Amino acid sequence: MKTTALILAGGKGERFWPRSRKNCPKQFLSLTDDGKTMIQKTVDRIRSLVEPEDIFISTNANYRELVKEQLPDVPESNILCEPVGRNTAPGIGLGAVHIRKKYEDAVMLVLPSDHLIGDEDTFRSVLSEAIETAEEESCLVTMGITPTAPETGYGYIKFLREGARKNAYKVERFVEKPDLAKAKEYLADGGYLWNSGMFVWKVSTILGCIEKYLPEIYSGLVKIENAIGSTDQESVLNSAFETMPSESIDYGVLEKEDGIRVLPGDFGWDDVGSWLALGRMHALDDAGNLVSGNAVTTGVSSCIIEGGKKLIAAVGLKDLVIVDTEDAILICNKDNTADIKKIVESLRKDKREEYL
Amino acid sequence: MKTTALILAGGKGERFWPRSRKNCPKQFLSLTDDGKTMIQKTVDRIRSLVEPEDIFISTNANYRELVKEQLPDVPESNILCEPVGRNTAPGIGLGAVHIRKKYEDAVMLVLPSDHLIGDEDTFRSVLSEAIETAEEESCLVTMGITPTAPETGYGYIKFLREGARKNAYKVERFVEKPDLAKAKEYLADGGYLWNSGMFVWKVSTILGCIEKYLPEIYSGLVKIENAIGSTDQESVLNSAFETMPSESIDYGVLEKEDGIRVLPGDFGWDDVGSWLALGRMHALDDAGNLVSGNAVTTGVSSCIIEGGKKLIAAVGLKDLVIVDTEDAILICNKDNTADIKKIVESLRKDKREEYL
Repeated sequence: MKTTALILAGGKGERFWPRSRKNCPKQFLSLTDDGKTMIQKTVDRIRSLVEPEDIFISTNANYRELVKEQLPDVPESNILCEPVGRNTAPGIGLGAVHIRKKYEDAVMLVLPSDHLIGDEDTFRSVLSEAIETAEEESCLVTMGITPTAPETGYGYIKFLREGARKNAYKVERFVEKPDLAKAKEYLADGGYLWNSGMFVWKVSTILGCIEKYLPEIYSGLVKIENAIGSTDQESVLNSAFETMPSESIDYGVLEKEDGIRVLPGDFGWDDVGSWLALGRMHALDDAGNLVSGNAVTTGVSSCIIEGGKKLIAAVGLKDLVIVDTEDAILICNKDNTADIKKIVESLRKDKREEYL
Repeated sequence: MKTTALILAGGKGERFWPRSRKNCPKQFLSLTDDGKTMIQKTVDRIRSLVEPEDIFISTNANYRELVKEQLPDVPESNILCEPVGRNTAPGIGLGAVHIRKKYEDAVMLVLPSDHLIGDEDTFRSVLSEAIETAEEESCLVTMGITPTAPETGYGYIKFLREGARKNAYKVERFVEKPDLAKAKEYLADGGYLWNSGMFVWKVSTILGCIEKYLPEIYSGLVKIENAIGSTDQESVLNSAFETMPSESIDYGVLEKEDGIRVLPGDFGWDDVGSWLALGRMHALDDAGNLVSGNAVTTGVSSCIIEGGKKLIAAVGLKDLVIVDTEDAILICNKDNTADIKKIVESLRKDKREEYL
């Protein structure tokens, strides 16, 4: 059976402001030293498993040109632009019906475009087993990450030791982002994995689930599928999406379906959820700093400084993230990276479009 | 007797980097809302006491043009450029011999060019009494500041309650910058004042002291005086300064002379010794911040943020000074403002002239 992929690339990446902007969010930025953007790295990572013409990109019209530029070997017709945001279920469903139209059935990887994987060989080996499981068991498969810390920013997956198919364990239940006490409990328990948001399933399996649990979305998707390749394709897509309810694949399908399997992965996954990821991705100096670009420091420790053209002079600082760009500079306490969104909201409220 | 003034304007102002630069140090910058530079404010403050043609500026050749621009009504011949830095005694002596050449004798105010005075009327009233004292008593007079905190960054003056001439007290002794314990003692004692570096004396008095305590410097000054107005003026100045020892007026004269008087002043004096002065000079918001320029903040308290063109986004910060300029941005802990000099030194060592 064909293996295809849907790369989710519609995110706004606001937590990576000021580098991530409305017109060029995080997935289209290079945050690593190799000069490749996050989405390019995502695609490169699966090249040995999926042909370029079988890679679909779920995004929106704003990013169509960026996708074309950055992924020139992905056919333009594979760039699927959601006319309005309706959360992940309609977006993934849109990818699924495009693949069904092309191949009737196929295995479908669903991958975020803005994560990093340290050990790509292991990643591909886990992914291969996920593909095999999804195809042979006709079940939904998720990629779980072996927790290394009591993270409160991720959802967790409770899995069962019994009934495993090689490394593919049965999912007992999905757990929302926990508080710190719960997260510590999950870490100590050993029976929980982080929900990475990476999925593998057959198109027939996921569309069957959407039909069963989200019939309203499914009927819209069927209309879209029937119009693919016709002159109505665009208008049907628009009207169908407009009337679809907003629903996440996690809440709408995964938390309801039985028989889901999860493969624990230990391949240096990082969701690059905040600027702190930079400190995890690079070697730090003796004072625990990551300093790049035009910067001079004295008495600075545990800071992440990403300089630009302007000279950054840092004196007596601790636990800060400093990111300079052409028109804005962020100076943020490491404990408050989640509040970067507040800055973006306030700029939006004040209609300071040039900074969004 | 004529009242004249010597404004000391040769400082480098490194503690105000990155706004203060080698080619335009602090005294030539505006740090207040009225748009006037520090030296302009210094001169404006004494306009009712001293004619512009009796105001002399002690500086060096680098700043001659800045002085001409900023103080157009001060005669160019009053701009006295020291060929090499020899500390304050030769510089003040140079001013004194120029005044003696012009007027034989006169009262001479010696004022730093980079201090701020909150209550200028009171300042002038204290200064008037100092002028009267210096003229009638033929003694050295210093302006002392009533301490409001156990500052360790200033020298102190111990004065005697007995033998006062109105508000002009006898100086018992000058005290070097103390440690915190000593500073607290001085503050509690009530018999100590801060040494403001503002002096009043007759030219005959100070030159008499220099002749007595610093004869080598005095003989150089006499050579310079004799050459004023001649074609040799420049070369004599250069050769005399070159051979003069480096000496401060405090150590070389004030700490040796008897009969010095001090006038306690309580006129909102601020030596603007670091970026922290900005917080004292302006009203703060409810979170104790002083934010100006292009900046957006969330969860920020007790910070001084001086924005420029670039947007500064500050998230979760406390007790920082952030100063943006065209080509450099300073981010400094309030406790470490003295270390800004280390940044400047390091830039100098690395020959990054564009930032000096």
